[in-house]
Amino acid sequence: MKETNSILDRELPQENQAPVRREGLVRVAIAGATGYAGRELITLLARHPFARIARLMSSGRTEKQPFPIEQSHPALRKLSQLSCHPLRVEDISKEEVDLVFLATPHEVSHDLAPEMVERGLRVVDLSGAFRLKNFRAYPRWYGFEHHAVPLLKEAVYGITELNAETIAPARLVSNPGCYATSVILALAPLVQAGWLDKNSEVISDSKSGASGAGRVPSDKLHFTEVDENCRAYNLFNHRHVPEMVQALGLDEAKFTFTPHLLPIIRGILSTVYVRLAPSIRPKSAAKIVSVYRNFYTRAPLVRVYDEGVLPEIQAVAHTNYTDLGFSLDAATGRLIVISALDNLGKGAAGQAIQNMNVMFGFPQETGLA
Amino acid sequence: MKETNSILDRELPQENQAPVRREGLVRVAIAGATGYAGRELITLLARHPFARIARLMSSGRTEKQPFPIEQSHPALRKLSQLSCHPLRVEDISKEEVDLVFLATPHEVSHDLAPEMVERGLRVVDLSGAFRLKNFRAYPRWYGFEHHAVPLLKEAVYGITELNAETIAPARLVSNPGCYATSVILALAPLVQAGWLDKNSEVISDSKSGASGAGRVPSDKLHFTEVDENCRAYNLFNHRHVPEMVQALGLDEAKFTFTPHLLPIIRGILSTVYVRLAPSIRPKSAAKIVSVYRNFYTRAPLVRVYDEGVLPEIQAVAHTNYTDLGFSLDAATGRLIVISALDNLGKGAAGQAIQNMNVMFGFPQETGLA
Amino acid sequence: MKETNSILDRELPQENQAPVRREGLVRVAIAGATGYAGRELITLLARHPFARIARLMSSGRTEKQPFPIEQSHPALRKLSQLSCHPLRVEDISKEEVDLVFLATPHEVSHDLAPEMVERGLRVVDLSGAFRLKNFRAYPRWYGFEHHAVPLLKEAVYGITELNAETIAPARLVSNPGCYATSVILALAPLVQAGWLDKNSEVISDSKSGASGAGRVPSDKLHFTEVDENCRAYNLFNHRHVPEMVQALGLDEAKFTFTPHLLPIIRGILSTVYVRLAPSIRPKSAAKIVSVYRNFYTRAPLVRVYDEGVLPEIQAVAHTNYTDLGFSLDAATGRLIVISALDNLGKGAAGQAIQNMNVMFGFPQETGLA
Amino acid sequence: MKETNSILDRELPQENQAPVRREGLVRVAIAGATGYAGRELITLLARHPFARIARLMSSGRTEKQPFPIEQSHPALRKLSQLSCHPLRVEDISKEEVDLVFLATPHEVSHDLAPEMVERGLRVVDLSGAFRLKNFRAYPRWYGFEHHAVPLLKEAVYGITELNAETIAPARLVSNPGCYATSVILALAPLVQAGWLDKNSEVISDSKSGASGAGRVPSDKLHFTEVDENCRAYNLFNHRHVPEMVQALGLDEAKFTFTPHLLPIIRGILSTVYVRLAPSIRPKSAAKIVSVYRNFYTRAPLVRVYDEGVLPEIQAVAHTNYTDLGFSLDAATGRLIVISALDNLGKGAAGQAIQNMNVMFGFPQETGLA
Repeated sequence: MKETNSILDRELPQENQAPVRREGLVRVAIAGATGYAGRELITLLARHPFARIARLMSSGRTEKQPFPIEQSHPALRKLSQLSCHPLRVEDISKEEVDLVFLATPHEVSHDLAPEMVERGLRVVDLSGAFRLKNFRAYPRWYGFEHHAVPLLKEAVYGITELNAETIAPARLVSNPGCYATSVILALAPLVQAGWLDKNSEVISDSKSGASGAGRVPSDKLHFTEVDENCRAYNLFNHRHVPEMVQALGLDEAKFTFTPHLLPIIRGILSTVYVRLAPSIRPKSAAKIVSVYRNFYTRAPLVRVYDEGVLPEIQAVAHTNYTDLGFSLDAATGRLIVISALDNLGKGAAGQAIQNMNVMFGFPQETGLA
Repeated sequence: MKETNSILDRELPQENQAPVRREGLVRVAIAGATGYAGRELITLLARHPFARIARLMSSGRTEKQPFPIEQSHPALRKLSQLSCHPLRVEDISKEEVDLVFLATPHEVSHDLAPEMVERGLRVVDLSGAFRLKNFRAYPRWYGFEHHAVPLLKEAVYGITELNAETIAPARLVSNPGCYATSVILALAPLVQAGWLDKNSEVISDSKSGASGAGRVPSDKLHFTEVDENCRAYNLFNHRHVPEMVQALGLDEAKFTFTPHLLPIIRGILSTVYVRLAPSIRPKSAAKIVSVYRNFYTRAPLVRVYDEGVLPEIQAVAHTNYTDLGFSLDAATGRLIVISALDNLGKGAAGQAIQNMNVMFGFPQETGLA
Repeated sequence: MKETNSILDRELPQENQAPVRREGLVRVAIAGATGYAGRELITLLARHPFARIARLMSSGRTEKQPFPIEQSHPALRKLSQLSCHPLRVEDISKEEVDLVFLATPHEVSHDLAPEMVERGLRVVDLSGAFRLKNFRAYPRWYGFEHHAVPLLKEAVYGITELNAETIAPARLVSNPGCYATSVILALAPLVQAGWLDKNSEVISDSKSGASGAGRVPSDKLHFTEVDENCRAYNLFNHRHVPEMVQALGLDEAKFTFTPHLLPIIRGILSTVYVRLAPSIRPKSAAKIVSVYRNFYTRAPLVRVYDEGVLPEIQAVAHTNYTDLGFSLDAATGRLIVISALDNLGKGAAGQAIQNMNVMFGFPQETGLA
Repeated sequence: MKETNSILDRELPQENQAPVRREGLVRVAIAGATGYAGRELITLLARHPFARIARLMSSGRTEKQPFPIEQSHPALRKLSQLSCHPLRVEDISKEEVDLVFLATPHEVSHDLAPEMVERGLRVVDLSGAFRLKNFRAYPRWYGFEHHAVPLLKEAVYGITELNAETIAPARLVSNPGCYATSVILALAPLVQAGWLDKNSEVISDSKSGASGAGRVPSDKLHFTEVDENCRAYNLFNHRHVPEMVQALGLDEAKFTFTPHLLPIIRGILSTVYVRLAPSIRPKSAAKIVSVYRNFYTRAPLVRVYDEGVLPEIQAVAHTNYTDLGFSLDAATGRLIVISALDNLGKGAAGQAIQNMNVMFGFPQETGLA
């Protein structure tokens, strides 16, 4: 896989260099403040010691006037006294804002990010608009032509643990998909070590809570249709597949990803099935644990479990951690990696802030652990 | 309360008279087959020994052509091979259909029921369109003027346990609201016995699963908004209040009903607070149990619990029973009645079929227990 | 795989022969009536037109005296007026009972079944005590030595759809595991047709509701530990694996089964990953649908979905169906089979009654659809 | 009600006096670290800027040796690296610990608190062991005789909003029950203002998530018994009643409290029914809102809603707030107060830390908002 330009070819992240942190607090704007990722950003930033929310904006609401954000998110009463404004690029300038989080639909991010970067703002985009290096892939996976190809090329894919060095100076960080983060962190150490059997399949059977599908009501997300249910969807056809393939340098013909909807609000559990190369057949999962711990030495938000203990969603819900655990069938080299994270935490807002931390020279986990 | 015309003034139901059952199976049509009550009707009727579904209809779907009902309700595959047709009154005639269940919006039922009755069809309407005897109450509670006042007057309020005699010959039975059924069955024996303290409050704090709100997606019924939540709604202002007051002859100024949304699919639990008249202060709830058992002697779908055991939703979910239990504070005469039913069972489709059974001379519980 | 003695080597089930049904109702006894499978058996048999419960028994309760079954299962009030008795073999004789359902722990079934068969009773055992033909496998998978090897040999593995002919005359039917049923029905048509790529992996990622774990409280099944959670368990080590391998003739080194606990009460969803043999690469899943429909022609409780529609748990919960759907990646021959059933229905009590139906000459689906 | 010695007779809380905060961080020990309240304390204290956990202890585990707390609470991996020790009073001294949180069973707290206070430690007890001023009430409500009557007399009932002045210097703060906090905060402003109709009933119909019942598995808390269910329990007989009556000076014969179990993990919703004195009949709930806002002016963790908006559990889950909202029937003076809080937050650990903040001179909401 070495001939691909996957992010794993890059050097592993080093200890953060001397901080480039500017005086005072980082001033952030959030576009898409009325969605679930927006709410999570506001909640996490309220506790962040070095950041301050300068502006909340929303495009999806019909209101033309600013409204208190608590109207949209009752849980934020008192926690945030801010108003949410109509989303207009001209309202944000680098004199007042250092960083913009785009928690907006793919198309909106696609249109806004270039303008914002041009205005001198740094951007972390939580949508998929700048995730795929191959601009030709956009019509198939996202349903639109990409018109910002140079910026797409420049954008840094923000899996913080793998890419901190390029994230640090980036103008535009493209925050990974929630499922993608879950699978990439589960496999990166094996891919990097060259331990995967190249002839065998890689299958991720992933399960997600319903908040991953956003806040817009629909038949499929109606309470009575999701509760006491579980279903698979987008088989062989989920838009997080190309970013996983790109990041890990996988062979798409041998990589299967199946998402499922769980009757819970938050959390992703990925059960990832691989076979180790015949030359690499450790006698116990303890060796695997050691490889992962080594790989994630400087990753404060990744927790690698001992052999015999498995991650589960409750251990990561309402946190910004990714938990990884293992079960090995030593005789055959079959390995199951279990990966758990909170799709709104590490899978979205948490990782976005982790990337902000790197961009402004703070320790990665600042305000997140 | 004797001066009101509440249904409790009527004689208690007698053993059903000789059945008027026609030859062969009762042929039923269901309007509103794509909703939850429609699905429950189809499921229950599939097991009914003396009924046959002759036609499924729906007004809400955009399809102009018939479609297999399993498209709308996957759980019905194989159970029902029927197609669902556009809802048109002219498609149903008494040559092919004996009874129509209207599981349609209030306004639709209001418009259709008169036409159907005129065509010689018997109707059980599951909406609120024919529940309130006072036609002037419709604009306030349902938002429309009632234009079928004579039929409204004729319609029989279908709490089967209280009203079987007038249901039996009825052309139009108005099936009660789910909350209303829960509260009326909880209080009817006390009201009938004159045991309520006339000066004190009656409060029903009721909790319902989300299927009671129907199948149309909305912000408030989005999975992530209902799960791990509980909220009260429509305080002092729920449209089931006037039918409870009418049926029980209560003083509206002393009757409070508060519905709550539970993060479950099916079921209603009503916690009903009353105070017994000072002259009637039994030493234990056993006396209450005895009064209720006596009242519901011929009510095969009401289950009266012994003292010390309380109904809960799981005991009635997926059944057509109403369960009643009691806790008495003997010193003060405070009594709590707990009432549980399945809002789609006894609270909707189950009671509709129970009424059909009475209308066609079958034992009440046929196909329901 | 033809050299194995998997149940797939047998002839496909034929239309049931002339019924051997005895006069009057089948009289059944249920041992283990206080568990969830026991409750489901009682509920289903209450509606069965040709069966009658003659005796309920339980070994797990401390009561030495009979008690009303509604004490254990409030939902059964009025539905069943029976008492539950201490479990003693000598209390059941073939003069009063035709069939015994054992919904008892593995060890209890292991001890009781031989005695009962000897007393001339026919038995359907819902435990794993008679599932594995290889008696030497019991210590590893079930933790006890098997002491009834001849009866183990005689016992018929009761996947009704695959084995109706040997079930019909059987003295002892061993009802399959819930997960096993889900996976075997998902794969049997492919195995039978020889369509699986023999060199590639078969993986079943299965998800189950908590009732599959039974009614005994534990840390792991405490509400607050299961709700809003999902976790994998028993990796490479679940006791349903050997029965799947045995029934399907799979290569254990290439078959991976991973169970997960879902925060729901009832239902199993299995996502089964296979690769079709290179010689068999249909252009669309429609061909697969056709193979499955052909295989399950005479299987009234299996529902094969059209291409593009996928089973989900809600469609099978509270039913006795198994639903099967498909997604094919035609270019690579990767096929995902989705299988859904209710673990208490087709996965336990439903299939037990389906087997009873076959044993007594009734149509398979009697009382179950 | 003025003749009672309810906490409402005291002066309303003033702005905190000059902080008495000692140098450095407050060093806390937690007894009962393996329970849910223990986990919440650890999680909240990990973020607290002025506190440090010095010791974790547990009496309930069989281990005689210290073990990493993450073994008991996987969610705490990396967040807390501490070990949990067997609970022994002699292991804690005021040289190393400033404050002990007792998250232990009532009997354990009853025994430990006096010893600890004697050792010069300040204590916040989350159990009920020191809540009831009348020591004679203990056998009835808690099942044991109270043997620490002087300390019981000295203990301060820790509803922070009502009692900050006496909490500040206290040696022993008795943290209120979760339900009690919910009801007391809902009614205190009305009681204080003398607005309740003295002749009418006060009813609190309260609903709680299952974590309120603790972590010990039982039939009643088994996942399959709680999910998709709702049930009332302890009617006229819940041990939080006497502390509500004591704190509010209510007439027990006219105060009814009914707890219900919700199928959720965290959160309490109390629907409180009162009638306003005839002399006080405001035209709209806005007047009520104003009275409450005035009362809670200096209460940063109480959020009083505008008329027309109601609290719900999701708005307070995973927070330390109490939310209050109102619906008034102006014609009759009936008022419904809706109160929501997180039973592990403001209902337990959050309020315990809020009390610690007051005891050590920090702003109440430090580390909690």
